[in-house]
Amino acid sequence: MKNVISAVCVKCGHEIEAKPDITTCPKCGGIMDIKYDYNYIKNTVTKADMADRRENSMWRYQEFLPIEGNSKSPKLRVGWSPFYEAKQLAEVIGVKELYIKDDGINPTASLKDRASAMAVVKAEEAGRDTIACSSTGNAASSLAGNAAAAGFKTYIFVPSRAPKGKVSQLMIFGATVVSVDGSYEDTFRLSAEAIDRWGWYNRNAAINPYLMEGKKTVALEIAEQLNWKMTDYVAVSVGDGCTIAGVWKGFKDLYAAGFIDRLPRLLSVQAEGCCPLNKAIAEGKDWEPMEENTIADSIAVGVPRNADKALNAIRESNGVVVNVSDEEILSAMKLVGRTCGVFSEPAGATGSAGIKKAVDLGLIPHDASIVAISSGNGLKDTVNAIKAAGEPILLPPDMGALLDAFKKIGGPQ
Amino acid sequence: MKNVISAVCVKCGHEIEAKPDITTCPKCGGIMDIKYDYNYIKNTVTKADMADRRENSMWRYQEFLPIEGNSKSPKLRVGWSPFYEAKQLAEVIGVKELYIKDDGINPTASLKDRASAMAVVKAEEAGRDTIACSSTGNAASSLAGNAAAAGFKTYIFVPSRAPKGKVSQLMIFGATVVSVDGSYEDTFRLSAEAIDRWGWYNRNAAINPYLMEGKKTVALEIAEQLNWKMTDYVAVSVGDGCTIAGVWKGFKDLYAAGFIDRLPRLLSVQAEGCCPLNKAIAEGKDWEPMEENTIADSIAVGVPRNADKALNAIRESNGVVVNVSDEEILSAMKLVGRTCGVFSEPAGATGSAGIKKAVDLGLIPHDASIVAISSGNGLKDTVNAIKAAGEPILLPPDMGALLDAFKKIGGPQ
Repeated sequence: MKNVISAVCVKCGHEIEAKPDITTCPKCGGIMDIKYDYNYIKNTVTKADMADRRENSMWRYQEFLPIEGNSKSPKLRVGWSPFYEAKQLAEVIGVKELYIKDDGINPTASLKDRASAMAVVKAEEAGRDTIACSSTGNAASSLAGNAAAAGFKTYIFVPSRAPKGKVSQLMIFGATVVSVDGSYEDTFRLSAEAIDRWGWYNRNAAINPYLMEGKKTVALEIAEQLNWKMTDYVAVSVGDGCTIAGVWKGFKDLYAAGFIDRLPRLLSVQAEGCCPLNKAIAEGKDWEPMEENTIADSIAVGVPRNADKALNAIRESNGVVVNVSDEEILSAMKLVGRTCGVFSEPAGATGSAGIKKAVDLGLIPHDASIVAISSGNGLKDTVNAIKAAGEPILLPPDMGALLDAFKKIGGPQ
Repeated sequence: MKNVISAVCVKCGHEIEAKPDITTCPKCGGIMDIKYDYNYIKNTVTKADMADRRENSMWRYQEFLPIEGNSKSPKLRVGWSPFYEAKQLAEVIGVKELYIKDDGINPTASLKDRASAMAVVKAEEAGRDTIACSSTGNAASSLAGNAAAAGFKTYIFVPSRAPKGKVSQLMIFGATVVSVDGSYEDTFRLSAEAIDRWGWYNRNAAINPYLMEGKKTVALEIAEQLNWKMTDYVAVSVGDGCTIAGVWKGFKDLYAAGFIDRLPRLLSVQAEGCCPLNKAIAEGKDWEPMEENTIADSIAVGVPRNADKALNAIRESNGVVVNVSDEEILSAMKLVGRTCGVFSEPAGATGSAGIKKAVDLGLIPHDASIVAISSGNGLKDTVNAIKAAGEPILLPPDMGALLDAFKKIGGPQ
């Protein structure tokens, strides 16, 4: 990898060779970060080169990614997801410029496909045939799908609260699925023990530094889709911390390589019922474990495994933090659906919910430009969608019944 | 529209101007078909032009589409869905070359987005502000999503058996949804009466000839993704008949414009419990209504509204018909998931189920090349996915329990 210098521990600074199966720091146990040679990148690729590329997936950014030149292409088409200007939503929220990055349009319907596609490439480079992870759901389903397409075996640990939609994906993709009757933390611990015991390739994003490199491609795409003119803010829903850290890494890489001339501020949005990272930022102290009380299962992480990187990212970006209630999340699901035609799962709409709240609270000015990342498809959790949007009018096949029903709701007569 | 000559009735041949709000033949009530000037198309666009286009959506084929030059672009990114070579699946099925067109990766997760995106453009050209349809689910959710993004009001009629996933989409997108306690035919009739009464723009695919023109883009993409070298067969799951008719129209257009040099044979796959069109072909007579007994709700259409065009398409292509049981559909969902990493709803996996059966029965030779269209995402119907693939292993967060469970399923120790 000519573009990669090494892997560096974010805690103690220890530097090691970026082999495909590195995990945490061998010295202090801290999380590693991939270090690039930005001069090499600058001299190898330009914005004009990028504009000429036909590869409509995350792999269009090969110079920014830690992959060997001879690695096999992944099988599923991940990334290059739609990016919409959301004028109607901007108006409702009262902000000048608003964009939605719809990452629910990925092979397994979430942003996590970016990390899992990377995991499959690195597992192949490492010569493994089995990949494992623990996940609140999306990391798992994305691993199961991407691994199935590439012929890998998978062991997946999910907390038993994971929504049916996500679990059904795992089963269809042929993963061995262990549903753990406990918290995400319990699930994570059991998976770590099993991975140690059987030597599987580790797709836990807070352990394996390459996964964040996959996730960062969402930021690379946002910047390119904005024609390299960054917005003032980028809103990210935050659970484990890996996604917001990945987003930040992406923008920093582009800045260092001269592709963008300013960095956005991050808006870190957590659920009120589970916001250890935002709490740490707001109170200016270390994070502490919290319970996991929110319908937004994908970000219900009481013990964030990537706290260091996430807190660094928010602080470095001079970020804003805001917590939203479950009701605000449900209401954002409906609002984004009605105004943009984008159906987000609860955690996917949390970013938009946070923008609304931050604008209402005056944390973000009305003349700001913002991107909201919708990190997962609403079809993953239809129970909460029905909760957000209600049930249809049920009637017999009869015009009289229709007229009666329309009279009640103020419909046409 | 310089590329469009007229609209022609498929029944009586009556020809009318292709206005944006035409429905069925004013003379005989037959379904209209859009007639193109293939010389104009030939002289306007080449395969090389196409290769240069950056538009990664169905609108890259503007010369083949019945839209005004000044029409507003639709808001959601529909089409240019992934196309995968399915080597492992080909091996299991015992066929030389097999491809999956994953149309579940569309904004509202089905092929129907192609028709609904077209409906929104034509409704706008017609100066309407409200669009309505009846649907088994996907046409409805795609209309709701595409219309919401473009600022249209929608009235949608679904049979009450439509899966929760699809209904939740409608509600999130802000449609007025009427759930009809009756068959698809009952639902269709009530919607037709309401559309007549209130003058809404009609998005019923068997009434509005433009919708098939949207659907045909899946065929245009398949051909381009095959580098214009057609396979021997293309497998399509068939309900109302509009999709298979659209697919055929797409290939015929490309052939007439000199983009492909041979036409594929269609493999029409229906569910055993609801196969009026395949029955008509197999028995060489007119179609007759059937009950709607299948889990594949999207193709459970006992009274196919586009029978004429569908039967023409199958016959013209020298097509093959095969019916599959619900068990075969469930088993194909699992097989496609495990081998390709593609999660299809029951009707989406019906094409693949049909290929397997047709090969097993010797209707398709082992040395054939085939494309299967996965028309909808499995997340739309997770109840059937769980039925297909089973439930995960549930256990407490404890290594002993994990070892016990693995012992039972022959896992590692």
